[in-house]
Amino acid sequence: MPVTHRNRNVRKGPPSKRSPCPVAFSLDIFGDRWTLLVIRDLFFGRTRFKEFAASPEGIPTNILTDRLERLLARGIIQQMPAEDGTKRMAYRLTKRGKALGPILKAMRDWGLASDKSTRVLA
Amino acid sequence: MPVTHRNRNVRKGPPSKRSPCPVAFSLDIFGDRWTLLVIRDLFFGRTRFKEFAASPEGIPTNILTDRLERLLARGIIQQMPAEDGTKRMAYRLTKRGKALGPILKAMRDWGLASDKSTRVLA
Repeated sequence: MPVTHRNRNVRKGPPSKRSPCPVAFSLDIFGDRWTLLVIRDLFFGRTRFKEFAASPEGIPTNILTDRLERLLARGIIQQMPAEDGTKRMAYRLTKRGKALGPILKAMRDWGLASDKSTRVLA
Repeated sequence: MPVTHRNRNVRKGPPSKRSPCPVAFSLDIFGDRWTLLVIRDLFFGRTRFKEFAASPEGIPTNILTDRLERLLARGIIQQMPAEDGTKRMAYRLTKRGKALGPILKAMRDWGLASDKSTRVLA
């Protein structure tokens, strides 16, 4: 029998559910320190990898690549050709991605109320 | 010179800010797969360590201990004596913790709309 190798893409697929809870479902997709910052940038009108990477939090590019792949796989963002004539890609929120707006707004409001040194960046 | 040891509690303190963004501030506190599930349980009326540990997601007890300490340090929950006459502690949301309600509701709504197999647990 040949040695089988793990499919490196398995972890990109939907993980098995932790519970039927919709909050747990949501956290399995964006329960980390970075994903919702990329979503925030998309709401701010940013569309390019280099724009996300330039945000002040300094997302590591390997994490950014991973998060964009996951968001594409989940139908939260979609790719489109960049408008600069290069072969590079740009990203935009899908309808499902735009539906994350209330979550971001609630986090913004909670952060603004909890720490007076925070301010909306754009 | 004696060898100095790291203070094991240093990481529990407020981390240096990644940016002035209130969303980044929020994610530095609860941007992980578990913290908001504990907050959810508190909204459901659960107050005890063993109750949080019994939730269907099966939070590892070392993670639960860490998250409760962080939430206490951030003023999101507070301790009170358990009502069973033992010396064990119970937890409740502070005003700041209750202010997380809109975030949880938005995540619940997004999860319910995104995956029809999810359902509100309590």
